[in-house]
Formats: sequence, C-alpha cells, structure tokens
Amino acid sequence: MKKIRVFVSGAGGKMGKEVVRTILGQEDMQLVGASDARQQGKDIGEILATAPLGIEITGPLEGVHLKESRADVLVDFTNPQSVLKNTKCALLAGVVPILGTTGLDEADIAEISDLVDQTKVGAFIAPNFAIGAILMMRFAQEAAKYFPNVEIIELHHDQKLDAPSGTALKTVEWISEVRKPLVQGHPNEYEKIKGSRGGDVDGIHIHSVRLPGFIAHQEVIFGGLGQALTIRHDALSRETYMPGVMLAIRKGSQLSNLVIGLENFLE
Amino acid sequence: MKKIRVFVSGAGGKMGKEVVRTILGQEDMQLVGASDARQQGKDIGEILATAPLGIEITGPLEGVHLKESRADVLVDFTNPQSVLKNTKCALLAGVVPILGTTGLDEADIAEISDLVDQTKVGAFIAPNFAIGAILMMRFAQEAAKYFPNVEIIELHHDQKLDAPSGTALKTVEWISEVRKPLVQGHPNEYEKIKGSRGGDVDGIHIHSVRLPGFIAHQEVIFGGLGQALTIRHDALSRETYMPGVMLAIRKGSQLSNLVIGLENFLE
Amino acid sequence: MKKIRVFVSGAGGKMGKEVVRTILGQEDMQLVGASDARQQGKDIGEILATAPLGIEITGPLEGVHLKESRADVLVDFTNPQSVLKNTKCALLAGVVPILGTTGLDEADIAEISDLVDQTKVGAFIAPNFAIGAILMMRFAQEAAKYFPNVEIIELHHDQKLDAPSGTALKTVEWISEVRKPLVQGHPNEYEKIKGSRGGDVDGIHIHSVRLPGFIAHQEVIFGGLGQALTIRHDALSRETYMPGVMLAIRKGSQLSNLVIGLENFLE
Amino acid sequence: MKKIRVFVSGAGGKMGKEVVRTILGQEDMQLVGASDARQQGKDIGEILATAPLGIEITGPLEGVHLKESRADVLVDFTNPQSVLKNTKCALLAGVVPILGTTGLDEADIAEISDLVDQTKVGAFIAPNFAIGAILMMRFAQEAAKYFPNVEIIELHHDQKLDAPSGTALKTVEWISEVRKPLVQGHPNEYEKIKGSRGGDVDGIHIHSVRLPGFIAHQEVIFGGLGQALTIRHDALSRETYMPGVMLAIRKGSQLSNLVIGLENFLE
Repeated sequence: MKKIRVFVSGAGGKMGKEVVRTILGQEDMQLVGASDARQQGKDIGEILATAPLGIEITGPLEGVHLKESRADVLVDFTNPQSVLKNTKCALLAGVVPILGTTGLDEADIAEISDLVDQTKVGAFIAPNFAIGAILMMRFAQEAAKYFPNVEIIELHHDQKLDAPSGTALKTVEWISEVRKPLVQGHPNEYEKIKGSRGGDVDGIHIHSVRLPGFIAHQEVIFGGLGQALTIRHDALSRETYMPGVMLAIRKGSQLSNLVIGLENFLE
Repeated sequence: MKKIRVFVSGAGGKMGKEVVRTILGQEDMQLVGASDARQQGKDIGEILATAPLGIEITGPLEGVHLKESRADVLVDFTNPQSVLKNTKCALLAGVVPILGTTGLDEADIAEISDLVDQTKVGAFIAPNFAIGAILMMRFAQEAAKYFPNVEIIELHHDQKLDAPSGTALKTVEWISEVRKPLVQGHPNEYEKIKGSRGGDVDGIHIHSVRLPGFIAHQEVIFGGLGQALTIRHDALSRETYMPGVMLAIRKGSQLSNLVIGLENFLE
Repeated sequence: MKKIRVFVSGAGGKMGKEVVRTILGQEDMQLVGASDARQQGKDIGEILATAPLGIEITGPLEGVHLKESRADVLVDFTNPQSVLKNTKCALLAGVVPILGTTGLDEADIAEISDLVDQTKVGAFIAPNFAIGAILMMRFAQEAAKYFPNVEIIELHHDQKLDAPSGTALKTVEWISEVRKPLVQGHPNEYEKIKGSRGGDVDGIHIHSVRLPGFIAHQEVIFGGLGQALTIRHDALSRETYMPGVMLAIRKGSQLSNLVIGLENFLE
Repeated sequence: MKKIRVFVSGAGGKMGKEVVRTILGQEDMQLVGASDARQQGKDIGEILATAPLGIEITGPLEGVHLKESRADVLVDFTNPQSVLKNTKCALLAGVVPILGTTGLDEADIAEISDLVDQTKVGAFIAPNFAIGAILMMRFAQEAAKYFPNVEIIELHHDQKLDAPSGTALKTVEWISEVRKPLVQGHPNEYEKIKGSRGGDVDGIHIHSVRLPGFIAHQEVIFGGLGQALTIRHDALSRETYMPGVMLAIRKGSQLSNLVIGLENFLE
C-alpha cells in the first residue's frame, strides 16, 4: 500500500502536536514534514518529547517545503492569519489542504474555491472534526422529521465567552431544514425569571450551561407523546478530533474539488 | 398497634383518589371518612372502581364529619378556595390537618399558626410531597458548600405555563442559604442569542425545558476542578407523592405545633 | 380528502382504548367499528367515558363486521390467541391488518405471508410501535460504523421478568450487521463480582437495570478517542406508541404486500 | 496568617506535579520542599516547565529534609513501596503525613496507628480525594433510607482491569449500613443472557461499563413509586482530586490522631 504523505503546519501548537502524534501511529500515513513559526530547526521528536524522528521543523510554510517533501496533503492547524496563505501555497504546489483552523470568512472561502477550480487540486475545510458531533447533528436532523418538539442543552467550561455554542447553532440550522414550522410549548407560557426558557432560534430553545470541570457537551432532546429521544455528545479532550482529522486526510487526499464539512466524508 | 384514623377531603379529585387508594394499602392506617363536594353520597369504592368499602362520601367538609369519624388526621387535597376553611374545621375538631393543596398565602398561614397555638392541635403544610425532590434539594444545599458553581436544568411537560418551576426556585433558595457569594462563568461572557444563558436568580442560572412527553424533572449540576456532581429527580406519576403523604400522616398525627415542609420529617 | 376507515379489534383493552381515543382525534381517519370479546353491545363512547359515539362494539371479530363497516384497515391489539384468526378474517375481507399484538411465531407469519400473496391485500406487523425506539436503533446502527466500541444500558420497572429486554437484543442485532468484529475492553479485564460487566451478545455488553418508578428506557453508549456519543429513548406511557400506530395506519392502508417493522415506514 | 508549610514526596510523578502546581496557587500554603527518587537535584520549576522556584528536589525522602524545611505536613503520592517508610519518617520528624498513595494494607495501617499514638503526631489517609465522589456516596447513603431500591452504574475507560470499581463497592458498603434488607426486582426474574442483571453485592446490582473516551464516572440510581433519584459523579482529570488534597492539607495540619477518609473533613 502506498502511504499518504502528510505535511503538518502549525505542528508545535496544541492541536498540531496531537495531529503529528496521531499520524505517527497510522499505518497508511507517513509524516513527511512539519512547520511552525516558533519551533524552527527543532527535530519534531523534540517537541513530542520522544526520540528524534529525523524530521526538522521548518519555519513559516513555503511551497518549496511541500515540494521537497513530496507531500500529498497539508494539514493546517495554524491561526486565522496564516491559514489562507498556507492554503494557497499548498494548492499551487499541488498539495491538498485539510483545514481545521477556524477564522476563514466567506471571501476567503470564495478565493480558495476559485484557486481549486484553476489548479484542479482539491481542498477540505471542516468547522468541526469531532465525528460524534457530526453524527449527533445528523441524527438530530433525522429525528426532527418525526419529533418536531425539540430543545438543545449545551454545556461548556466556564471560560467560554459566547453562548450559545457554534455547534448548537449549527444543529438548529440542520434541524430547521427539515422541521415543519411549529410554535412549541404552551401559547400562554411566561417567564417569572427572564431568560429561564433559554434562547430562541427558529422557535427552538437553546440552553447554555457554563461550569468549571466541563469541556464540550451537547444534548438534543426530542419530546413526543409519552416519550423522549435524547442524543448527546461529550467531547472530553483534544483526542476527540483526531479520528475526524485522519478521516479527512484519507478522503481528502483523493479530492479534486472543494469540500466543506466532515459530514461529506461519512457514508 | 393502634391505627391512625384518616379522613380525606377532596377524595374525588385526582390526587384525592390516589391518596385514598394508598391509605387503603397501609397496615397502620384506617380510612374513616371522605368528603367531596361533587361526589356526595357515593360509596368511596365506587369512585375507585372497586367493591363498596362501606364509607359514604360526605359533601363539603364539616366538623361533625370529623368528630363522628373520630379522625386523627385530615388529609386535604381540595382547592385554594376550600383549604383554609377545612383546616380551621379540623383544628377546632382536634384533628391534625395535613395540607397538600397549594394556594395558601402568608396571611392564611399566619391565621393557621394562630389557631394551632390556641387549640394546641398540630398542623402540617407541604409545598412538595415528593421525598425524592426534597432529598435532591437537601443534597444540593450540602453540595453547594463544596461546589459553589452550580446551574439548574428543570424539564416539564409543555402545558406548564410558568418558568422556572417552583421547585427550581426553592432549590436556589436552599442553596443560597449556604453558598458563598460568587460570580459564576467568565466575566466577559456574552449571549449571541438572548436568554441562552438561562434565568439568573442569586447568580445561579436556571434553564427551563418544556417538551411533550416529559412530566416533572430537575437536574442540579455542580462543576468543580475536573469534576461534576449531578443530582437529578424524575417525577413520573401522581404515585410519586404518595410515600411523602404517608410519611406526613405518620409524623403529622403526633404533632402539636405547625410544621411546614416535608424535610422536617426526614431524619 | 378521503378519510381512512379504521376498525379496531381488542378495543376494550388498555392499548385498544388508547388507539380508539387517538384515532378519534385524527382528521384523516374515521373510526368505523370496534370489537371486543368482553364489551359486546356497549357504545364505544361508554368505555372511553365520553358521550356516545354511535358505534356499537361487536363481539369477537367476524368478516361481516369488516365488510359492513367498509373498513380500509383493521388495527388489532387483541391477544396471541386471536390475532392470527383476526388477521385471516381481515385479509379475506380485503382489509389491511395492522398488527401490534406480539405472539406471532414464524409459522404464523409464513401463513400470513401466503395469504397476502393469494389475496393481494397488504398486511403490516410491528414488534415495536415507538418511533423513538426505532430511531434509536437506527441511529445506533449508523453510529456503530464509526464507533465500534459500544455498550447498552436498558432500564425497566422491576416487574419485568426477562433481562435483557427485546429492544436491547434487537439493537445489538442491528448494530452487529454493520460493526466490524471487535474485542472490546482490556484483554486482561476481570470481574471481582460476577456479572458486573453485564451480559455479552456478539461482544457487546448489555446492562439491565430493574427499579420501581421506571417504565421502559434505553441508552446506547458509544465511546471513542476522547469522546462519547449517547442515544437514549424513554417510553413514559402507552401514548408512546400512538404516533407509530397512526403512521402504520396511514402507510399500511396503501400496502398490497406484507411489511414487518415500523422502520420501513420511516423515510 | 501563618502559612501551612508543605513538603511533597513523589513530586515528579503525575499526581505529585499536579499537587505541587496546586499548592503554589494557594494563599495559605507554602511549598517548602519536594523529593523524587528520579528527579534529584532539579529545581522544582524545571519539572513544572515554569521559571525556577528556588526549591531543589531531594532524592528519596529522609527525616533531615523534613526538619530542615520545617514542614508542617508531608503530602505523599509516591508508590506502595515507599509510602510506609515515608510516613514513619514524617511522624518521627513531627510532620503530619497526608497519604494519597493506595497500597497500604491493614498491617501497615495498624503500624501507622501505633506510631501516631506514640508520637502524638496526626496522620491522614484517603482512598479517594475527589470531594464529589465522597458527597455522592454520602448522599447515596442518606437516600437509601427512603429509597431502598437502588442500582449502581459505573463507567470507566476501557483500560481498567477490575470490575466493579472500588468506589462502587465502597458505595454499596455505605448504603448497606443503613438500608433495610430487601430483595429487589421481581422474584421470578431471569436472565436470557448471563450477567445482564449485573453483579450483586448485598442485593444491590452493580453494572460496570468500560469504553474508550470515558474516565471515571458513577451513577447511583434510586427508584420508588413513580419517581427516580439519581446521583452522578464525573471525574474528568487529575485536577479532580486537588480540592480534596488541599482540604486534607488544611484540616490535616491540625490533627494529632489518625484519620481515614476525606468524609471526616467534610462538615
């Protein structure tokens, strides 16, 4: 079997290190290079606290690094400032970028899309790499066809600034595509304490809990005549995202177009 | 063993019937009478759909009914209009009233308290007869000493009008008695959708879910460094309240003062 | 819109009554007859404790009842003794039987299948009418493709005799169709107390909880790298099954073959 | 305020490092020394990846280290081989040992107890430093007085070898102290799949789930007439144990006897 040759940019960051460590454990992948603006010159083994691996970390990514390493894909977990530049660099070098960095706006995506069309090199962007979270949203969408009454509870650590979470809003978006318009609850219900009934998006109530100890969790609760159906996802560490990243590398390496969303790689 | 002689007012209502049925199954209790404004003259067995029990339902409660039946306690599940009148009637007849009817205001309670003092006959009032709910609130209070970060999620059927539930508010009240003042969450947190973070009472966030299929449920969630402690109560039917009513009858029959709250009868 | 004409056999039983009550609330259905061996001659309104509805309950079902009422479908919630007879009666009368009664064995089903082929009249059999439970099983099957590590917890009232539940076993069956063979857990794991790790079916552990207060609940828990995905169904009353029965009536009325399993009527 | 002077043995281990890091953040404590057999000579800041802290790690603990540092308490998270030796060393030096290391047997504890009596220096041993887990067990014990029907579900990562967990067994022990003897479930219940009903200890069923992604979780579920009460603890990281260790340091520093179990330091 020919191994997929992977280059990782942002390899010294928290996610980057986890990605590198995980790739090293895959039989069908080979780490062929790594870049990191702040760790230039170190052996990648050094930042993983393992024996040297014979791969020297380059500074900010350049096309020449990708070409010399004969990479098939570039996994980028850098930052909003670098991701667009790195993506173009990959596409022009004939390397498929797999983008986990958030922070691309619509104009950036349009630019990437154009470059994909010109170069005929594929690209993949995922707002969420947790396969379990994607399944939760997909199941929620399917359940909503039969149970239009639904509320969402999402629980995160208390250092999260915004509420509700992006995943909760995305879940509502997916549900709303199929759910018949519906006014839930009693028409005369009222709040004795403002906000008790949560935030309302498209008639779906979202409740955001923020507590120390929690990481990233969500429950989608459907109620029907005499029954309830609950779909819950718990993300407990950065490892959560690795199977999704590996799937994206495998499927992405065969792309020649732009694909957005991990759900496209699930059957 | 001398059995406790119990009279039930409001015996034909949903809760009243359940109370009567449960009392009939207790070895240490004897049903000695029943009243109901709308079922006067029927045998109590008739409204339970059982064989006749030889107890005829009287109309609106009068002292003479209580005296003739030589009742020890009166269990009242009537309505806000009748409860005060029935309570006075019991106290003057030397019978301990056990009150599950909601709808007594502070003035009513003061009046009952005065009459208890005069007559030296005990009385018992419970806002909530579910022992599990009382335990949940008690445990929540105890946990709050060690885990000041807490949020409450309560879930009810979608015909409930008010949010949050009385039990949620009572839980916050109990917790606030012992919890060190604390601003939870990140000081810069913000709501992208208004209400997402729930209702705030004394700095504790309450989230009210309303869905068909649910009955009456509450979770009190404590978060701490790397851990969470959750206490959940599910009330699934009217039977939920019966062990609490039976406990109140047993303990209440020995009272000579006014006691409010089932928690006083738990060890 | 032409209404679907529905006849209910076993109309006086607990499920039968609930079915009748629910049909009466559907705009696209008309109750055209009801049979019950023990309630013959009564108006159907009498057993529902409503005003008379002008439909007299017949005794044990006969073809003539179905023909005179010009029924489209027969909903049967009788008992294992009657269901096969009633089904044949319906098929021969050109009426589609919708069967919720459990207790049909393979020979019975083969016989029904043959008669369906001969008469060209459709038939529908469902082991479980709770749509939420079907969705849970379907989602579990889909999730197992990505998360092969799975365990099942099912919780029922403490009067249930057998463990695990039929739904748990059915869930394992569906999961096993797609799950890669896998030995879960640590190869050296051991039980200090026998049975702690639950029952093992196809390498999937099932845990059966039996407690008063519970009705019928199941959780399918998937674990993966740093994450968990949980799908839970709670059945809280007989009403649970009604939307599934209504769906079966709507879809079943158009059948001309034999269909087994409500999942075939979900998109 | 006089600060509590703390010496940490096993400071280079996973728990040791976490303890050191946490102590450095407490206003009422001062880290006065640290030992670790494998990190001798390093500055403690080096192993925390912080700036130097001016505290050099000594090799295997000796009384002279404790005396020179004028420690009030010794927190020991070493290993079963060292803990007894370190404990004696502390007691003879007049320093209160706080022991989190598991692996002390009854003979060891008897020996410690004797030395505590002789020296009049206190000592503290905790099988579990997670305050939330202690509260869960305490609440479970209290609830069992009112809800004798109870089952336990514990969920751990799939590398755990033994089932059920020590915490589950300890919970049963605490419950059994107060619970009226009871045969739960239906007398005729039977297992279609062996082990489905879990492990039975004192008539209480324990169910052990082992799945990747999970860490250490337990639910104690009480069922009663029409209601359920659930107490759940989730331990999500090593930080879980730190508040309990800090509490033990504060309370332990004032001991002059042997105390076993963190529950003794909760109100």
